[in-house]
Amino acid sequence: MEANTCKQDVLQKKKNAILVDGVILNGPITDSKAGEKFVEEACKIIMEEIIQKADDVTEKVCEWRAPETLKKILDLEMRDTGESHQKLLQLCQDVIQYSVKTNHPRFFNQLYAGIDYYSLVARFITEALNPSVYTYEVSPVFLLVEEAVIKKMIEFIGWEDGDGIFNPGGSVSNMYAMNLARYKFCPEIKEKGLSGLPRLVLFASEECHYSMKKAASFLGIGTENVYFVKTDERGKMIPEELEKQVQRARKEGSAPFLVCATAGTTVLGAFDPLDKIADICEKHDLWLHVDASWGGSALISRKHRKLLHGIQRADSVAWNPHKMLLAGIQCCALLVKDNSGLLKKCYSAKAAYLFQQDKFYDVSYDTGDKSIQCSRRPDAFKFWLMWKALGTTGLEERVNRALALARYLVEEIKKREGFQLLLEPEYANVCFWYVPPSLRKMEDGPEFWQKLHQVAPVVKERMMKKGSMMLGYQPNQGKVNFFRQVVISPQVSREDMDFLLDEIELLAKDL
Amino acid sequence: MEANTCKQDVLQKKKNAILVDGVILNGPITDSKAGEKFVEEACKIIMEEIIQKADDVTEKVCEWRAPETLKKILDLEMRDTGESHQKLLQLCQDVIQYSVKTNHPRFFNQLYAGIDYYSLVARFITEALNPSVYTYEVSPVFLLVEEAVIKKMIEFIGWEDGDGIFNPGGSVSNMYAMNLARYKFCPEIKEKGLSGLPRLVLFASEECHYSMKKAASFLGIGTENVYFVKTDERGKMIPEELEKQVQRARKEGSAPFLVCATAGTTVLGAFDPLDKIADICEKHDLWLHVDASWGGSALISRKHRKLLHGIQRADSVAWNPHKMLLAGIQCCALLVKDNSGLLKKCYSAKAAYLFQQDKFYDVSYDTGDKSIQCSRRPDAFKFWLMWKALGTTGLEERVNRALALARYLVEEIKKREGFQLLLEPEYANVCFWYVPPSLRKMEDGPEFWQKLHQVAPVVKERMMKKGSMMLGYQPNQGKVNFFRQVVISPQVSREDMDFLLDEIELLAKDL
Repeated sequence: MEANTCKQDVLQKKKNAILVDGVILNGPITDSKAGEKFVEEACKIIMEEIIQKADDVTEKVCEWRAPETLKKILDLEMRDTGESHQKLLQLCQDVIQYSVKTNHPRFFNQLYAGIDYYSLVARFITEALNPSVYTYEVSPVFLLVEEAVIKKMIEFIGWEDGDGIFNPGGSVSNMYAMNLARYKFCPEIKEKGLSGLPRLVLFASEECHYSMKKAASFLGIGTENVYFVKTDERGKMIPEELEKQVQRARKEGSAPFLVCATAGTTVLGAFDPLDKIADICEKHDLWLHVDASWGGSALISRKHRKLLHGIQRADSVAWNPHKMLLAGIQCCALLVKDNSGLLKKCYSAKAAYLFQQDKFYDVSYDTGDKSIQCSRRPDAFKFWLMWKALGTTGLEERVNRALALARYLVEEIKKREGFQLLLEPEYANVCFWYVPPSLRKMEDGPEFWQKLHQVAPVVKERMMKKGSMMLGYQPNQGKVNFFRQVVISPQVSREDMDFLLDEIELLAKDL
Repeated sequence: MEANTCKQDVLQKKKNAILVDGVILNGPITDSKAGEKFVEEACKIIMEEIIQKADDVTEKVCEWRAPETLKKILDLEMRDTGESHQKLLQLCQDVIQYSVKTNHPRFFNQLYAGIDYYSLVARFITEALNPSVYTYEVSPVFLLVEEAVIKKMIEFIGWEDGDGIFNPGGSVSNMYAMNLARYKFCPEIKEKGLSGLPRLVLFASEECHYSMKKAASFLGIGTENVYFVKTDERGKMIPEELEKQVQRARKEGSAPFLVCATAGTTVLGAFDPLDKIADICEKHDLWLHVDASWGGSALISRKHRKLLHGIQRADSVAWNPHKMLLAGIQCCALLVKDNSGLLKKCYSAKAAYLFQQDKFYDVSYDTGDKSIQCSRRPDAFKFWLMWKALGTTGLEERVNRALALARYLVEEIKKREGFQLLLEPEYANVCFWYVPPSLRKMEDGPEFWQKLHQVAPVVKERMMKKGSMMLGYQPNQGKVNFFRQVVISPQVSREDMDFLLDEIELLAKDL
């Protein structure tokens, strides 16, 4: 395609054409004018079909197709010859049509939603510039921006100083923290490994994110060495139970090294009591990591930051601005209280081809060796541009409004027949059952709960096939399937909360 | 900002305004029209300042500023109140101006470069849709696309079947492979960890990527348990030396489990002899992982795929289409020969809130549990759209032309006084010294090499301050600083190769 048109041009224009291995080497082979035109046309589609429709509740959240059907609709096969621009633009249309609109006001399915125009612009810029943030020479602006954003996030945690790095996901941030705590506990593990060492043990609540298990497995610690600590009826870690687990580990002769508290659990939105947990960590000399991937954004709100009371005592914090603050997937920081270079010491491999020490500038700006990645995306930048645009007060308003909307929803649930709250939420996760008319007169017992368990999956299927909204459900800690409504987006209003409840009633009336 | 204008509107329009905690909950708070306008204006800047200038050699590759100076130029501080759109657009301009133009035809500094318009469009689409690929319900199109791309890549490796996953970087792919090989070796490690087990040992060449050490450290194996195998004068692993290292590990009573061969080393672009290495792996029952992050793209070329002869015998392969094929950072696949679900068994944590088993569709499409990440970007999509646009022949042409250009450069280097090849390259890395006039008459000896060592850093400083091009240098295996020219982009022509040599001569003439 690009070659055919260009090769002729090149042959005509250049008399001193040089061929090596049958390839003409004069001039570039890309038809940049055609390429730019394609980008322009595609941008028009993106603007009209995604961005302008993002706040339109009359649009569908998803245009559901079963996998086998969708495979037939999309022309997935990659062939020897390329397609025309016209065909490609149609493909882009199809991709958009059958993708879930996560920025739709009625997408409540995950811990992220909505659209932020400033973050989006930042992301378009970085995609066009295609940087990789490891060295200052290749990524001067984005490294400085990352440093500034980390400094600001540290300020909101309440540390005087610290360090940090942006990672591809909160799960990866949690892994970083686990490895860092291990390195602090025993630096020789970096070189020697775990073989021959006592069994390392870490602690996290029953309600912690599943990445703790993934991390323990990946890091060679083993999932059985994550000691799960009981939670109270609101999903918060019970400090006395943590103390018991630490004692148990000590008695077994294993080596406790880390407590992972959660600030904003995935399902219930619970906040572990950080201050009391920090006391136990101090007493036993354990690293305190706080997984605030979801709840960290409350730090921005003067009204709600008390949810994370005690977080300044943590040794490390994971915080994902791509969730409640809408910075766009992915935007995840690991922040570390240590300012003695622990992160670098733990992670550096000192690759001579990348981190040359005889550069002409201050190589302390080449921060890439703090990462487990080599190429790394400039995820701090989108958060930075959004912060510049909205100011801290604008970000604060997002948090305050989400939690006020959640509060409104809770009160509405209490008023309506058939809806039953699982618990009073403290954050933006509103968990509830919907008991359809046919079950309302049933006696409480195994049969009732078994039938109720089947309600949410059916309602979910119906809402997706209709495309009216998306909402998650799950069983949890012995409780049958319940809905989890997550309130995030500034596009969302109380009308959407009302719609949510009306729609569930409508979809489940015959169940 | 967004709130002030909107709150008044909302108050005027809605008579039944509902306040919770002082927050008005009626209607959305985002001014979407203003947001869309901002996106449009920013897109114009992106088009004019980045995309249209990408192929213009008269533009600077970089506008160098020292860190402290750049900090002063950029207004990095995040404040309580937001900035105006006008100020934000100026910020975007500044970010672009002071960023390195990695898509400039004379950016030769890393293993990626150039611009592909189709990949770029795909990336704009995914940024606007903001998906996360874990479940089919949230990411139907992108999961099917990933499956199709992985299938196609497996075909080019030469396996009949297999599995795979896209990751945030080749380093992470290598980690995945290392953990997978370990799981295959001893599945109990997932639950029990490494404590009490014999010392695990893996093998990689002296020239392997530094991510092997990072991975060994992160996974709790320990960097000392990476046994580095000697390479020949071209940087290729010597199979007899591998055999010796395996014997040594066995004698020590440790547990060898993995050989990491490299197809396209970072500095020299060397390809390990895969077929001979596979023989040794078979003999000793070791997992063979091939880090083809850089060299994998040669598989697309019928002419050059012989560089990876024997790759079909590997158990796993890392391959980054964001490098020579220009898919955009990041686009990195780990491909696995096993088709019995090993990847899923090794990585799954079965989070009940995400991977519900009572969904209404075939949940085998919910492939997210194969990942160490939770949120994950749809990196396969940009490769897919590019492949659709160019066809396999278009991708093949990129590889063939890059290697023909590298060949041209090698011949030019041989012709010019003062330039000295390090070795005959087999791929797109052309490594050479430039001996400036003042050193040409010096006797070969420590003083000569010490002086030559200082040449590349000075030339690098000068080229960056001038902004004319960017080219890497490094010492390697006892050899003093040499230049590494990496030929990738379809924007590049033999005129750029000539320029490169002319420019070095010009910048170094007084050295």
